[in-house]
Amino acid sequence: MHPLVFQTDFGLADGAVSAMYGVAYCVDPGLRIHDLTHDIRPYNIWEASYRLIQTINYWPAGTVFVSVVDPGVGSDRKSVVIKTGSGRYIVTPDNGTLTHVLRLEGIAEARIIDEHINRLPDSGECYTFHGRDVYAYTGARLAAGIIGFEGVGPEIPVEELVRLPIVEPYLDEKGVHGTIDVLDIRFGSLWTNIPRKLFLETGVEYGDRVSITIEHDHQTVYRNIIQYAKSFADVYVGEALAYVNSLDCLALAINQGSFARAYNIGTGNAWRITVAPFKGYF
Amino acid sequence: MHPLVFQTDFGLADGAVSAMYGVAYCVDPGLRIHDLTHDIRPYNIWEASYRLIQTINYWPAGTVFVSVVDPGVGSDRKSVVIKTGSGRYIVTPDNGTLTHVLRLEGIAEARIIDEHINRLPDSGECYTFHGRDVYAYTGARLAAGIIGFEGVGPEIPVEELVRLPIVEPYLDEKGVHGTIDVLDIRFGSLWTNIPRKLFLETGVEYGDRVSITIEHDHQTVYRNIIQYAKSFADVYVGEALAYVNSLDCLALAINQGSFARAYNIGTGNAWRITVAPFKGYF
Amino acid sequence: MHPLVFQTDFGLADGAVSAMYGVAYCVDPGLRIHDLTHDIRPYNIWEASYRLIQTINYWPAGTVFVSVVDPGVGSDRKSVVIKTGSGRYIVTPDNGTLTHVLRLEGIAEARIIDEHINRLPDSGECYTFHGRDVYAYTGARLAAGIIGFEGVGPEIPVEELVRLPIVEPYLDEKGVHGTIDVLDIRFGSLWTNIPRKLFLETGVEYGDRVSITIEHDHQTVYRNIIQYAKSFADVYVGEALAYVNSLDCLALAINQGSFARAYNIGTGNAWRITVAPFKGYF
Repeated sequence: MHPLVFQTDFGLADGAVSAMYGVAYCVDPGLRIHDLTHDIRPYNIWEASYRLIQTINYWPAGTVFVSVVDPGVGSDRKSVVIKTGSGRYIVTPDNGTLTHVLRLEGIAEARIIDEHINRLPDSGECYTFHGRDVYAYTGARLAAGIIGFEGVGPEIPVEELVRLPIVEPYLDEKGVHGTIDVLDIRFGSLWTNIPRKLFLETGVEYGDRVSITIEHDHQTVYRNIIQYAKSFADVYVGEALAYVNSLDCLALAINQGSFARAYNIGTGNAWRITVAPFKGYF
Repeated sequence: MHPLVFQTDFGLADGAVSAMYGVAYCVDPGLRIHDLTHDIRPYNIWEASYRLIQTINYWPAGTVFVSVVDPGVGSDRKSVVIKTGSGRYIVTPDNGTLTHVLRLEGIAEARIIDEHINRLPDSGECYTFHGRDVYAYTGARLAAGIIGFEGVGPEIPVEELVRLPIVEPYLDEKGVHGTIDVLDIRFGSLWTNIPRKLFLETGVEYGDRVSITIEHDHQTVYRNIIQYAKSFADVYVGEALAYVNSLDCLALAINQGSFARAYNIGTGNAWRITVAPFKGYF
Repeated sequence: MHPLVFQTDFGLADGAVSAMYGVAYCVDPGLRIHDLTHDIRPYNIWEASYRLIQTINYWPAGTVFVSVVDPGVGSDRKSVVIKTGSGRYIVTPDNGTLTHVLRLEGIAEARIIDEHINRLPDSGECYTFHGRDVYAYTGARLAAGIIGFEGVGPEIPVEELVRLPIVEPYLDEKGVHGTIDVLDIRFGSLWTNIPRKLFLETGVEYGDRVSITIEHDHQTVYRNIIQYAKSFADVYVGEALAYVNSLDCLALAINQGSFARAYNIGTGNAWRITVAPFKGYF
């Protein structure tokens, strides 16, 4: 018996997620079911992919994640279950949801769900809620040990899994370059794709000033000098800072304010950031 | 030991739902407690009724649902527990919350909660939170097997339960007629009360065009020809479609858009819809 | 094995709370984990403190609460675990979150978390997410019985714990005086800090009229005569009432409306309320 963890873009305001819980419970009443989030913005596959990599390795090996952000439901997109390099499982439509796990964690094996076996009995007339009828059902059977991984369906090559385009961070003489991957929604921080280790190759240390440039579609939208701080408490309330976030990447924030709202910053590959040591004087 | 599932209009932003969980946990720490939703719009009994019928049959027989949308708390409205035709239990104020279950599923037996027995000890001075003091407490005792169904209190005739007015769908020579029952909030789809089987009596098949007329208080607010599709992926992004939803009823949506917002459509018995096969040419 | 209950200001829209769940699950897969709320307004320590006192005593003795509203993360604010007078545990930054529990419930013993022992292994480079790396981890170990209370770290005097300023309610010849402590967010009710027993010393009984005066920074913002009612159902829909809330304190509401929105009322020590019996005629 392994934990079963659900992620969707359904929200919690109607009965959809509860129906998924119920289906899993019918598979095995002893299951332990939990949530990653159900507030992925509708159809936002990128965000679903990011929230998985943000979370999965804090759960025990063997945990089964079911992620349903599925704008292509009813199309010929595949339904898959993958096993990560570290032994967690993800049940999902193959639409790019696995992008970050593929890149940062690695996938050991992938299988297509055989819906002749792994579909809620008597659900055949419903073509719009695979989250309940296929994904929750299959995830529950896998978590409960009713099927093993090979019972999901036939194996497919990992290389065939759908990937969203990614811009790799890099270092050159102008500094370290990356993209704004995602917002820490509640606190308005920007999370970049620049790993701490790459950033530290610029020679910056805690307390140093860094120059930040953010461009959107090649237009500069923010340019300033701020402190690289260990944590929010190192700067004044209302002051901006650069820091290492809980995913070990560089992030920007305003202490007790919202950097994203203050400067109207968005996310995605069109939002580029350059960070460099600041050598000037104040 | 049966699952215990809570639904309220309390939201999750304060401690009310957690207090209900705690009360149930004190009754029996082994209980498995879950949520249907806590985002029913405040006082919206119709929506509470609808979310129950949307969900309950995906949970195992024996599951105890506690639904607290209770604008009449402290009035002489009754507190009841019912047993559905298929053996689930619902604990609720008798204010119309059972309307859809009565109509679509059937109720085998109903009992009034005897608050001399089934009320949290020492809660007698609080007249505003029966959700915690009566409903969660009674539901927990029933789910844990501390009381059987007959231990709830005296039986009352099912016919006496409060029903909200319902407009039945019907078929005539102009097409199939129904009402807009509820919104799929997150995706802006309209869910009608027209069952798939009744709709198919019009002779329509997947891929056919249908004419849709929506009236509000006898004023036409939408009239158009759209496709009856198996799923969203059968139409273009931004195109409207008619489809069968996860409750096996007819629904309208815009692929990756919001039909409700696009055309300002609401819900309830004043919102009528007529669907007919479209025989013309484009 | 005791229940573990999380409260934060993180919201549920990203993976932060799920990472806390996962960490606790890795400590012991048999743990029962639940939520108080994750919608505390960002950085609002007062609200975190209030939600704890609203909820904790409905949970079994031995329950471990983890509350993370932590604007000072990374500063020298202490991380503590306390044992309440009635035997519940609270894991929290020592920043005022314990104010209401100190005042209304009492704290038997307090200990500082020794992060050499009670910190998620290999999390040392992250200075911004103690909720996951220190508080969830320590709370899980305590709830699972891996450490006892003395295993948390060294004891500190209860008197040293941080308290937010509180204005005590009192009675004089003009009536009973208090503050607006918090909003019942969903229904727009005002919850005062005036206990039912103190209020009843004015001689008021159910059905009597009371005069209400609300001042903000010494300016009167509301003055009216309303009914002291047993529950909402005793007044008309849309009518204001005074009642005893689920915390056994005086509250104001509009039946099926929002008192807070109707009169633009806020919360905190600058919002004073005076309630007196109304002896006049209509």
